[in-house]
Amino acid sequence: MNELHARISRSFRLQGLMATLGASLEFVDEGEVRIALPFSSHISQQHGYVHAGAITSVVDSACGYAALTKAPAGCEVVSVEFKINLLRPALGKRFLAIGRVVNAGRTLTVCAGELHAFAADNSGYKVVALMQATMMSVASTP
Amino acid sequence: MNELHARISRSFRLQGLMATLGASLEFVDEGEVRIALPFSSHISQQHGYVHAGAITSVVDSACGYAALTKAPAGCEVVSVEFKINLLRPALGKRFLAIGRVVNAGRTLTVCAGELHAFAADNSGYKVVALMQATMMSVASTP
Amino acid sequence: MNELHARISRSFRLQGLMATLGASLEFVDEGEVRIALPFSSHISQQHGYVHAGAITSVVDSACGYAALTKAPAGCEVVSVEFKINLLRPALGKRFLAIGRVVNAGRTLTVCAGELHAFAADNSGYKVVALMQATMMSVASTP
Amino acid sequence: MNELHARISRSFRLQGLMATLGASLEFVDEGEVRIALPFSSHISQQHGYVHAGAITSVVDSACGYAALTKAPAGCEVVSVEFKINLLRPALGKRFLAIGRVVNAGRTLTVCAGELHAFAADNSGYKVVALMQATMMSVASTP
Repeated sequence: MNELHARISRSFRLQGLMATLGASLEFVDEGEVRIALPFSSHISQQHGYVHAGAITSVVDSACGYAALTKAPAGCEVVSVEFKINLLRPALGKRFLAIGRVVNAGRTLTVCAGELHAFAADNSGYKVVALMQATMMSVASTP
Repeated sequence: MNELHARISRSFRLQGLMATLGASLEFVDEGEVRIALPFSSHISQQHGYVHAGAITSVVDSACGYAALTKAPAGCEVVSVEFKINLLRPALGKRFLAIGRVVNAGRTLTVCAGELHAFAADNSGYKVVALMQATMMSVASTP
Repeated sequence: MNELHARISRSFRLQGLMATLGASLEFVDEGEVRIALPFSSHISQQHGYVHAGAITSVVDSACGYAALTKAPAGCEVVSVEFKINLLRPALGKRFLAIGRVVNAGRTLTVCAGELHAFAADNSGYKVVALMQATMMSVASTP
Repeated sequence: MNELHARISRSFRLQGLMATLGASLEFVDEGEVRIALPFSSHISQQHGYVHAGAITSVVDSACGYAALTKAPAGCEVVSVEFKINLLRPALGKRFLAIGRVVNAGRTLTVCAGELHAFAADNSGYKVVALMQATMMSVASTP
């Protein structure tokens, strides 16, 4: 685990929601972060699929941390806004949220996010959701 | 509790995520639904505020159920997409997600959502987030 | 015409696109700007309605100028991003784009926009489109 | 020009706005459409760059026509909603709007759009804008 991964990992462990959802940090590289989410009925909507809000939570965190990998030292990142399309019911045994930096500006960074759903038989994945997000770098408060 | 409230309430209790977040159905009327969310560190992001994903979860559910109050009998509602702006850190003792139908079409319904944050001293509220969402009516599967 | 109106008006006249579309500045107040757009076939899509892009153009300008009414002196405003829902075909004799500031921050300002369509008989209006936009204040370049 | 291109081309010529902006249909393939837009001061905003509304117009049309290439025969496509991020000032001699189908559903199709800006010296391009759009197939009215 390199320094970048360690920095993201420390912040990730402070996100109470990620532990509550059962999410874990899976991959960190410059400009890209992935978060794994196993299926569980405690994150479902009324039909038993994963709730759009749980999907959004992990994709937003993946995008925010992807932006953080590109932020200047001493900066943190906050979500300004995002838009997400839910393409199909979030059915699967496990899910992977992928956040990628599309454009890193001085103040604002635009990210693209996806949620992939994997079936129990490991027969490939389907794209369940697509996000376009705007993140802002802010000076860390000590 | 009228029939409309009972219908939404039955569905709400099936959303595992709402119980996991600690959210409760607070108000149901034709075209408007409100969901209450108390602060808890288990729904936080890394600075201790409520995570944007938890905010999104309750506002999305409020919008979806607002759309359901306008949907034809025998229909359910799914989230097609939404966009949310996070206006300020979600600081507060409790939160209220409000979903309202702006335009109910035959297939698609557009909703406006908000999250209000209330301080411990009940000194009014601040608007923390604004959502614009597209919901789709689909025939219920028996 | 007060100073605020004059400031917006000067900028509006520099927007080549507004003249090309046939749009005119109709109303300026602190936090709200309205732009009028008469129907014309030269701004249509393939069915003869007003093109979503022309709608977006005037609503974006109305939101941007609404944000400018709240911006510090010596600042200009640029569009960071926006999302627009097209609620119904843009049918009408004339249209009114309304931009309102929902939250004015130090760097970012969130606006809500609408397009109203008026029939030839002046029998009220219909809301054709809804926008949620993020604007950024930037120092003017002299 | 194959049948698909001819079909899109007929519709494109009916879009009054495209001619008004100076846009032309550049490329049509299954799932992807490109529209060219030369710079002109009559589509500018107040600083002389291309107005976000003009950008949105061509990217929306490119996305809509990309969706149409995947739509069943006898169907047309309307824009339900879209979200666009403006990444940098739209500076350039000419621009290319690219619309691609990301997911084609029975009723709704999600598209990704971009605007590329080309300098006068043909020294490559910059991505100026990113769109995520929802299109709906509707039966053609004869």
